[in-house]
Amino acid sequence: MKLRDMSHAGQRRVFLEQQTATSLKHIGTFTVDEAVAGTRNCENMIGVVQVPLGVAGPLLIKFQISNSKFQTKSQSYYIPLATTEGALVASVNRGCRAITESGGAHVSVERIGVTRGSVFKKEQIAHWLTEHFSQLQDVAHATSQHLTLLRYDVQETGKYAFIRWYFDTGDAMGMNMATIASQKLADTIGQQTGMRCVSVAGNYDVDKKPAWINSILGRGRTVRADVVIPKAIVASVLKTTPQKLEEVWRVKCMIGSGLSGSMGFNAHIANVVAALFIATGQDPAHVVEASQGMTVVEIDEDGLYCSVTLPALMVGTIGGGTGLATQSEALQLLNCCGEGKSDEFAGVVAGAVLAGELSLLASLTEGSLARAHMKRAR
Amino acid sequence: MKLRDMSHAGQRRVFLEQQTATSLKHIGTFTVDEAVAGTRNCENMIGVVQVPLGVAGPLLIKFQISNSKFQTKSQSYYIPLATTEGALVASVNRGCRAITESGGAHVSVERIGVTRGSVFKKEQIAHWLTEHFSQLQDVAHATSQHLTLLRYDVQETGKYAFIRWYFDTGDAMGMNMATIASQKLADTIGQQTGMRCVSVAGNYDVDKKPAWINSILGRGRTVRADVVIPKAIVASVLKTTPQKLEEVWRVKCMIGSGLSGSMGFNAHIANVVAALFIATGQDPAHVVEASQGMTVVEIDEDGLYCSVTLPALMVGTIGGGTGLATQSEALQLLNCCGEGKSDEFAGVVAGAVLAGELSLLASLTEGSLARAHMKRAR
Amino acid sequence: MKLRDMSHAGQRRVFLEQQTATSLKHIGTFTVDEAVAGTRNCENMIGVVQVPLGVAGPLLIKFQISNSKFQTKSQSYYIPLATTEGALVASVNRGCRAITESGGAHVSVERIGVTRGSVFKKEQIAHWLTEHFSQLQDVAHATSQHLTLLRYDVQETGKYAFIRWYFDTGDAMGMNMATIASQKLADTIGQQTGMRCVSVAGNYDVDKKPAWINSILGRGRTVRADVVIPKAIVASVLKTTPQKLEEVWRVKCMIGSGLSGSMGFNAHIANVVAALFIATGQDPAHVVEASQGMTVVEIDEDGLYCSVTLPALMVGTIGGGTGLATQSEALQLLNCCGEGKSDEFAGVVAGAVLAGELSLLASLTEGSLARAHMKRAR
Amino acid sequence: MKLRDMSHAGQRRVFLEQQTATSLKHIGTFTVDEAVAGTRNCENMIGVVQVPLGVAGPLLIKFQISNSKFQTKSQSYYIPLATTEGALVASVNRGCRAITESGGAHVSVERIGVTRGSVFKKEQIAHWLTEHFSQLQDVAHATSQHLTLLRYDVQETGKYAFIRWYFDTGDAMGMNMATIASQKLADTIGQQTGMRCVSVAGNYDVDKKPAWINSILGRGRTVRADVVIPKAIVASVLKTTPQKLEEVWRVKCMIGSGLSGSMGFNAHIANVVAALFIATGQDPAHVVEASQGMTVVEIDEDGLYCSVTLPALMVGTIGGGTGLATQSEALQLLNCCGEGKSDEFAGVVAGAVLAGELSLLASLTEGSLARAHMKRAR
Repeated sequence: MKLRDMSHAGQRRVFLEQQTATSLKHIGTFTVDEAVAGTRNCENMIGVVQVPLGVAGPLLIKFQISNSKFQTKSQSYYIPLATTEGALVASVNRGCRAITESGGAHVSVERIGVTRGSVFKKEQIAHWLTEHFSQLQDVAHATSQHLTLLRYDVQETGKYAFIRWYFDTGDAMGMNMATIASQKLADTIGQQTGMRCVSVAGNYDVDKKPAWINSILGRGRTVRADVVIPKAIVASVLKTTPQKLEEVWRVKCMIGSGLSGSMGFNAHIANVVAALFIATGQDPAHVVEASQGMTVVEIDEDGLYCSVTLPALMVGTIGGGTGLATQSEALQLLNCCGEGKSDEFAGVVAGAVLAGELSLLASLTEGSLARAHMKRAR
Repeated sequence: MKLRDMSHAGQRRVFLEQQTATSLKHIGTFTVDEAVAGTRNCENMIGVVQVPLGVAGPLLIKFQISNSKFQTKSQSYYIPLATTEGALVASVNRGCRAITESGGAHVSVERIGVTRGSVFKKEQIAHWLTEHFSQLQDVAHATSQHLTLLRYDVQETGKYAFIRWYFDTGDAMGMNMATIASQKLADTIGQQTGMRCVSVAGNYDVDKKPAWINSILGRGRTVRADVVIPKAIVASVLKTTPQKLEEVWRVKCMIGSGLSGSMGFNAHIANVVAALFIATGQDPAHVVEASQGMTVVEIDEDGLYCSVTLPALMVGTIGGGTGLATQSEALQLLNCCGEGKSDEFAGVVAGAVLAGELSLLASLTEGSLARAHMKRAR
Repeated sequence: MKLRDMSHAGQRRVFLEQQTATSLKHIGTFTVDEAVAGTRNCENMIGVVQVPLGVAGPLLIKFQISNSKFQTKSQSYYIPLATTEGALVASVNRGCRAITESGGAHVSVERIGVTRGSVFKKEQIAHWLTEHFSQLQDVAHATSQHLTLLRYDVQETGKYAFIRWYFDTGDAMGMNMATIASQKLADTIGQQTGMRCVSVAGNYDVDKKPAWINSILGRGRTVRADVVIPKAIVASVLKTTPQKLEEVWRVKCMIGSGLSGSMGFNAHIANVVAALFIATGQDPAHVVEASQGMTVVEIDEDGLYCSVTLPALMVGTIGGGTGLATQSEALQLLNCCGEGKSDEFAGVVAGAVLAGELSLLASLTEGSLARAHMKRAR
Repeated sequence: MKLRDMSHAGQRRVFLEQQTATSLKHIGTFTVDEAVAGTRNCENMIGVVQVPLGVAGPLLIKFQISNSKFQTKSQSYYIPLATTEGALVASVNRGCRAITESGGAHVSVERIGVTRGSVFKKEQIAHWLTEHFSQLQDVAHATSQHLTLLRYDVQETGKYAFIRWYFDTGDAMGMNMATIASQKLADTIGQQTGMRCVSVAGNYDVDKKPAWINSILGRGRTVRADVVIPKAIVASVLKTTPQKLEEVWRVKCMIGSGLSGSMGFNAHIANVVAALFIATGQDPAHVVEASQGMTVVEIDEDGLYCSVTLPALMVGTIGGGTGLATQSEALQLLNCCGEGKSDEFAGVVAGAVLAGELSLLASLTEGSLARAHMKRAR
């Protein structure tokens, strides 16, 4: 009997334990609903991996969300971080404290839309698309009431036309909805123009590969957070000075990144995003897009100004892994579970990333990064 | 009382449940050892997140590991994948079947070394470093018997010298060991030359940011896998033809990635790496480096040739999250747990990525990607 | 007496000949009008450099220019190339022959607009710009009747807002007009909003630096040229086969460029553009943007398909060096001198680049590149 | 009769004047030796293009050339700039004055070697190359006594091995010599291993395309120049303050370039390099590599520190266009003509680029860039 023919996680575990002479006892201990997880989230399910979950905070955030009810909202959050890398939660925690004591981070969220970049064989589709856009919007919307085709970009080269569709997918991250809609759009275009769709996903999205197009045009949401930390709090919480922190930022995040051919002008956005994404049931491969962010530090008359911009944040508060028992609880901890919460959640990610950047840059000014790791290693 | 002053996950959960009016029941249900996880892996621990774990395989791999006992090893693996994204395990599973039925994937692993790029204020350190390299090797080795300073690159610009240290860290991923050693090296250089270390981590590593230097010079390990799939198996398992799959690769992974300013010339390496990394206790933020890989497809007289190259794979089989109960079991499933297993594990990652690339590219030739998502969504 | 105080090239030459004990006889022999050249084109003029000028062709081109009278034009050109690098003219010449014998190249020209990326200190200018755009268009137009502000992109990060203005500058390349207009726009924005312009040129244009934003969004003009070369002409003129040429393209221009972290997926666009630019009085530093183009080769049922796309071509047929005696003659040779000719000239550049790509790729299939250089060296 | 069958520039001009109904009188007026230029530099020669030549300077340079007799040399230069873009010479001239009044620029030159990246079909050549390197050095040297194979890098992906050869080519820029040697190396490798060379130039060089590999590993020469401009001279010559200039640099060259996906973190290196290259008979398409440089500005206790690093400068003082009458005179003006002068010339390029960066950045602080263009336009 083969794995895919077995119907339960337990049956598969027994089979694998025999085949590989191992014990999968801990993997087999779980409370998430196998009927759902094994169908929607994970084929050939044998159990779960337990990822330690810590919290940082409270983190005070002042929202500015375009066209949203959170426009003036000011709220405090405990940030759930699932990680196996020691020192990360402690570092973000320190950053939260610096921000919160400084009156909170300003956060803005801009909806760009989920993109899917399909490629067709035949040039000069641009004119046809302009003329049929409203029809294509109808085709897309018919695939899901939660999905709207917002706009598109076209790039033609050789015999190929690459179309980058932008979809609003409500509170879902929406990559799968976007793929389904893109397929329908491709079918429609094929029927009406005779153009063949070479690939519904043509690396012009670009999904889960580092790519400048995502930094320059955005993807999912573009989120920003900034704060001014008064000099006294820089000293008391971050144990450094604005001058030292600015120098590390300039030399590391700007000159160092520039010399390395980097797309990420930041300290460690990926760490914070990975931990928050795993905690809340996001797609962890989207850490790639998030890592392309830019951190900017400036010495301010009032202390230290720091900002982060993540041009391509892919998140949702429904769908994907967000409904699983533990992930759902982590979202509830943020009061960001379900419908109408994705913009707020995107803002929380920006705020947490800001906390992480401040804390790591501060550590680097004094060599305390190595000390933190040495201490834990003992 | 503040979070950081509480000593147990349970205490923190109760506090947070009260503060946020939520239930954290599932987060509180776990079997990993809190005494270890809460100290080494995750501060302010409140429990765990359960990530569904599936398996793909068996996947037959034929190893060629430089200077290693696995050189002629041929072995079959069940690949543990922790994911909340439906269709991924099924997709990799299909790729495994195509590879295994074709006689297995050839896999090679090359140790590059963990890098840390420190930056110093003062030019023209190159000559001094050449003369003192053996002393610096001693300084580095004194920080850990498992760490060896292999070599370094230097780049000077303005008043700054960026040094990229390459460390062998045995079977540990080794980023923290590398940081500790780099700090000692910085201290030594400071004492002997008067040069000030601006930052022990100067984005010349580059850690967890997409960067061309990692593609060009490698980081951690460079791994490769390739296979020739006979035409009949392309038809029976992948449901396509070599010609169609080659076209999708060329247009998507090459032309599409080129138009997008991408560093990743592949289909979805990040998906497979993220799932394998979470399953086995790797650092999930290193998905960023992994996503920079290149897939190459070619029509072969015998069928379809496909290869993947991941220039910068950061993995370990000791340290980090590898010792946690569920993660350790997942590594044991691969017989890749503990000392002497990291090269083999790196090879398994390459093989699994190859399976994922073949399967997704095949799906895209026929529009079945969208159908797979539609089916699950019902 | 200092150089800048001297009023004639001859006076400066005598001074320099004495200061440096050299003879500048040839530099002093010229026919361009010193009164104009020394005022508009070159301060401290001492004479000219003579760059050998060759011609390739005839090259048959079939135009498709958006909104233009050349839409159905089919025309033959002799391409003037100013170069000191032997073999270049001969190579382009061969490519022209292959194209012309195949019935000519299809060429299209799309006007993107000259860009200038100014940077302001203060966030959230986006809304203000939307509301005042028509006023800003008036401000821009008032600086020159030949200039129109078409649109803009805004990117905000930290305390800075980068605005990328797009100007139509008629038949002039227009960089200087764009700078003057951008300064006026900055003054107006400053007066009305209090925002300070940090730099009128903020590397968000991006002018004369390789940058993905120019590939992705275009700059100046986006031009394309393609052709199908029948198998027999591939053999007789290019001395190769479609299969061999396609392989060199795929491995060199796609895989090789991908491995190198290149923005240019082509063989040698820069060579052809540099020679044509110097011949016709264009700004040779814009070779940088032109080098970012992509060449696509495909085996066609009728032979060999080849296309080039230059996303960011900066050219003009009035202003700059186009009015100098020899440069003007070179433009007249193309019947592309003066008003109303810039779109046609842009198309000629695309066609010439296509010829150069075909010929070099063909040379590389057979090792004849080295032979060509060896022959000349004797 | 066809162009290529005609033996003299005059004959071709007459033919073209008739064919195109134009006058090529000025193109036909020249003093360069047609017998040489028409054979070595330019096929189908019809005459010359006259590019106005100006001079900037004097520019005081203090050399540090690795392993060179110029190590302690301090020398003043008049910089020849061939350009049709008004304001450029004046701008460089101002920068020269600021540098010279500040005691001169420190310049260093490091020989990297000309690269040619050949690609072979077959993996795992690395071991064979190591074992046969000294034989390959002999093969390369046999093609020219002026050429030495220094080292190589190998990158393997799919079925392809890309080899990046590094050659010392003495005082010649050496691209053609490198191609000839690479062809011989490919022949030798083919004969001894059976591996087929797909392309002797595989975009792993990378020649005349913007590419990160050139920034990271260098190409030709890596040159650096820096200077400290005292505050008083910043005010008197550059008409600005260190603070203002540093802000423009940071926001434009670092943040702006970072947002744009740029490889060039500078103000306008390409302008200065293009003008110097055309003046002195260099290959102007190599402006592409030069444009990838980085400028670093820092506020210094003594005033303003500024440096430029050009990682990939391709220059020569023999061969190419350097022997043509006017180009040779321009090199003589620098006392950089012929054998033993290429390192010094490379250093002069670095110094001139530094002058250009200082002057343009200063202009941008005050909006005087636009004023300079407005004045000229009148």
